[in-house]
Amino acid sequence: MKIGVLGSGKVGQTIAGKLAAIGQQVMIGTRDPQKLTEWQQKAGENAWIGSFKEAAAFGEIVFNATSGSGSIEALQLAGSEQLEKKILIDLSNPLDFSQGMPPILFVSNTDSLGEQIQRTFPDVKVVKGLNTLPAPLMVNPTQLADGDHNLFICGNDNDAKNEVKERLQQWFGWKSGAILDMGDIKAARGTEAILPFSMSLWGVLGTPVYNLKVVHQSLSK
Amino acid sequence: MKIGVLGSGKVGQTIAGKLAAIGQQVMIGTRDPQKLTEWQQKAGENAWIGSFKEAAAFGEIVFNATSGSGSIEALQLAGSEQLEKKILIDLSNPLDFSQGMPPILFVSNTDSLGEQIQRTFPDVKVVKGLNTLPAPLMVNPTQLADGDHNLFICGNDNDAKNEVKERLQQWFGWKSGAILDMGDIKAARGTEAILPFSMSLWGVLGTPVYNLKVVHQSLSK
Repeated sequence: MKIGVLGSGKVGQTIAGKLAAIGQQVMIGTRDPQKLTEWQQKAGENAWIGSFKEAAAFGEIVFNATSGSGSIEALQLAGSEQLEKKILIDLSNPLDFSQGMPPILFVSNTDSLGEQIQRTFPDVKVVKGLNTLPAPLMVNPTQLADGDHNLFICGNDNDAKNEVKERLQQWFGWKSGAILDMGDIKAARGTEAILPFSMSLWGVLGTPVYNLKVVHQSLSK
Repeated sequence: MKIGVLGSGKVGQTIAGKLAAIGQQVMIGTRDPQKLTEWQQKAGENAWIGSFKEAAAFGEIVFNATSGSGSIEALQLAGSEQLEKKILIDLSNPLDFSQGMPPILFVSNTDSLGEQIQRTFPDVKVVKGLNTLPAPLMVNPTQLADGDHNLFICGNDNDAKNEVKERLQQWFGWKSGAILDMGDIKAARGTEAILPFSMSLWGVLGTPVYNLKVVHQSLSK
């Protein structure tokens, strides 16, 4: 499959590197191709580098791995024509680090970055997900507790969410039951708002390798 | 021990009922004593009912189990003199249900209700905690996954947090390792902000008996 990954930071490199490693065709869209020389050597023959627009056109599915503060602009550069009718897996978070750690949110409570992206690109199938996780866990969940922790997705298109669920299992090894569908894109308010909390846990736990698990009563009880 | 519980809703009744059942002396502070007739009969001889002021004066430790929108006012009625130098276990959440479910937050991101309470009552040792949980789990964590899920506390006074940790183990059966100290009262921004997300999980899971667990890599690895 051909996949576009917008954003050349740690998250974008991790996602795209994993996809290339498992034999998918992947193009990272970036403003800064020089940054990716080392990444591309490692990622090998399945990995390309292009502009945001080229990567969006290339991908049958596109990941938004740009930093939240630049996501709308990056997607505008990618172009609604290139993204139209495609699934956009939105990993972005509306984080503002200008006041130190933990970050604050530049949109929250009564709106979310996921909703803003969906409103700006109404013909794109935005599926918010993976945004609550440290990058290495996104693509290798079984490194922690044999994958027994959760990933939250949301979006307005059920078929798109189901496809994303399948792809995350197939590409990265997520277990089906570990992926919780929180509802429509409005649920991004909730999954984005846990970031300041969850990022604080790094300092509390003393390890960057952690995630949330929802523990619940068995429904048969 | 003598304990004051401010608030006669489900949370207040659950906390105070459990404390009376294990032989603590407890007084619920309420504006509406009639509401508690049935509760008091069940709670028995260790249970009293009073005003906010009487309950605050009665307690060596005080729980704030009032609804978030009325917490500051209820605490003002309780009176700073009655609360002075005491530990206040703050269970409140700044939830606004006026726009439906999930609720929005009437204070968030760059401030929190926990911080507002601490600022309003600087001589009270505010320890935020239990606010992320459904009431039955607060006082009976082992009913779910043998207690293997987390409770988050924060506050400015380390001795107060340590005492609260011990009390929650002793009174309600929380395991020591299950109680995560998130830092000073500013961390209430994080633990209050997860409520809209965590309340949405009820509908997703189809059960009200659930909680979050932080799964992390063993530090010895």
